[in-house]
Amino acid sequence: MTGFGTDHLPYGIFSVDGGPRRIGVRLGDGVLALDELTDRPELAEKSLNPLMALGPQVWRETHEQVTWLAEDDSPTIPLSDVVMHLPFEVADYVDFYASEHHATNVGRIMRPDGEALTANWKHLPIGYHGRAGTIVPSGTPVIRPTGQRHADDIGPSRRLDLEAELGFVVGTPSPPGEPVAASSLADHVFGVVGLNDWSARDLQAWEYVPLGPFLGKSFATSISHWVTPLSALDAAWCDLPGQDPRPAAYLAPDEARGLDIDVEIELAGEVVSRPSYASTYWGPAQMLAHLTSNGASLRTGDLFASGTISGPERDQRGCLLELSWGGQEPFTAGGRERTFLEDGDEVVLRYSAPSTSGGRLTLGEVRGSISPARG
Amino acid sequence: MTGFGTDHLPYGIFSVDGGPRRIGVRLGDGVLALDELTDRPELAEKSLNPLMALGPQVWRETHEQVTWLAEDDSPTIPLSDVVMHLPFEVADYVDFYASEHHATNVGRIMRPDGEALTANWKHLPIGYHGRAGTIVPSGTPVIRPTGQRHADDIGPSRRLDLEAELGFVVGTPSPPGEPVAASSLADHVFGVVGLNDWSARDLQAWEYVPLGPFLGKSFATSISHWVTPLSALDAAWCDLPGQDPRPAAYLAPDEARGLDIDVEIELAGEVVSRPSYASTYWGPAQMLAHLTSNGASLRTGDLFASGTISGPERDQRGCLLELSWGGQEPFTAGGRERTFLEDGDEVVLRYSAPSTSGGRLTLGEVRGSISPARG
Repeated sequence: MTGFGTDHLPYGIFSVDGGPRRIGVRLGDGVLALDELTDRPELAEKSLNPLMALGPQVWRETHEQVTWLAEDDSPTIPLSDVVMHLPFEVADYVDFYASEHHATNVGRIMRPDGEALTANWKHLPIGYHGRAGTIVPSGTPVIRPTGQRHADDIGPSRRLDLEAELGFVVGTPSPPGEPVAASSLADHVFGVVGLNDWSARDLQAWEYVPLGPFLGKSFATSISHWVTPLSALDAAWCDLPGQDPRPAAYLAPDEARGLDIDVEIELAGEVVSRPSYASTYWGPAQMLAHLTSNGASLRTGDLFASGTISGPERDQRGCLLELSWGGQEPFTAGGRERTFLEDGDEVVLRYSAPSTSGGRLTLGEVRGSISPARG
Repeated sequence: MTGFGTDHLPYGIFSVDGGPRRIGVRLGDGVLALDELTDRPELAEKSLNPLMALGPQVWRETHEQVTWLAEDDSPTIPLSDVVMHLPFEVADYVDFYASEHHATNVGRIMRPDGEALTANWKHLPIGYHGRAGTIVPSGTPVIRPTGQRHADDIGPSRRLDLEAELGFVVGTPSPPGEPVAASSLADHVFGVVGLNDWSARDLQAWEYVPLGPFLGKSFATSISHWVTPLSALDAAWCDLPGQDPRPAAYLAPDEARGLDIDVEIELAGEVVSRPSYASTYWGPAQMLAHLTSNGASLRTGDLFASGTISGPERDQRGCLLELSWGGQEPFTAGGRERTFLEDGDEVVLRYSAPSTSGGRLTLGEVRGSISPARG
């Protein structure tokens, strides 16, 4: 079992031998090329955006058609023969901060003299806009950024970090002035990607007051090649861990749910953490409702992410800032003591979830290696 | 003199009678339709992005060709016969915080017990990413946003504000990992727009710690219909007001300059403030160099803005938060005492600058009226 059976069928963009970009669906260790198997124009495009824009009824029909093709033993192209690309054109990218364990740990590390959680944290899912233009597909090398580590201290980041996250990809747009209800998640969200929000903690710590992270995050964000249809996660919904105080009505405290997705962080060939997304405080529908609650419109290709996924235990922390407790408590990976990312390090994020078939499906992995700073 | 003579010739996107979007150049009170006057394919597009992507040599050639057409008394379409649209497709939107007077005032108002300027402020131009998908052309009504004004206090914003800014529009992209030098501003920036970064101060104050502004800003940002070519501002460059401590080398402290652009804020038919962009601490080339200093790439259509432009005097403050000192010192406009924006208010931002002809040119105005919150 690869986790890419007929109960999954995630979408991606591939090419063969330098040819054009094409839409494919992953099946086992191969790719079903949709342009050759159907004659629908939205499946002959170079990105998923035209399909994503058509909305949930077309997504369901497409998924049914793809399922027939997959069960019919349609020929696939071996993964080893394709190059994978960014699966969709990113419109706006919003990153949330939805894990209480992560926010509490970061608060303790970065603001040791204050409250770990800010006063607003349990009232709303905190989020901010990131840079859409530097979102790259899994496998793209990440160049260590250079910048201001503090006043009069410029150089390559010494505290380069990963952040294990999940990203939610918007298909159906919404008009300005009309908030999207939490109950409408499946009408707007086409699917889910794995996401690594690379972070330079020294640049971030110096720049982030008062307007938030900027250059500490904007150099690169990696996403998986494969977009898992939201419907493939039907068996993964679970209760949220519990919200107190009770959130406002637009955050749907009685209906909001989480996703039981297991995350695995591999660094230098060694699994260093196993967070569970099920432990995250704010659910995906709550993030979407909050994002649009001020009337902000959605565009096809909007991406909103969970923020770092950390569980309650030390071996469930979703970034190295937490795993090394701000660099104060080194841990072991690849046979050596470490705190932050070193040049040449490869990071792999893996995700799995219960499937509607009773087994488990494997979401697209997110892979990236650190190249030395330029110059 | 309208400020739209042959020494200016800004670009925009117009349509006539519900027809297709076309590229035009403003001349006096009319529009030169470029698709009918030239046969270059990038001038027959529906947005400025294809022209902007071609880089400064093509921009110069286009400007020369347009100047000949304008001086040749080519026919124009009256402004009253056209509808103007968003002039370009916005890629990423970054808003800076480059005015010392503004940042100092806001610091005093929002953090009265702390230092007015944060420790990093004079070391780097602070910036953050805003929402590209809610950037709208001048004249689009702005719906008052609803949101969390504080814990357990949800409703329409009571502190809706304007922010008078200038926006810089990127044409030429840059590859990842290669910072753009401050000296390369004119190689990458196609032109300048007026910009109003509408802000809901109550939503912003509650949400912005620790990751910065989000819903307090993301509901709408208005830009002018017309993009003034950077070259039309050749006579407007001026010294910066002075930077102490001396910024890092990549911020080009010896070469960096400002732009002598006068700003006028009209509220309810009355001019309430006249900031000067010349008093702004960080210059445009410094913002561009900082934005890319971590290796972040540029895309055609990226927009970076100055942040609120405030001068040292009370009648030079660039937003109502400052003009009313956090609502504590009401001022008069439209014959009444006021603090923040009321439903039905119209705001007009106007900009003018010295021209290479010895006169003054008028940049595109930014107009917007406040519609009541949706029920």
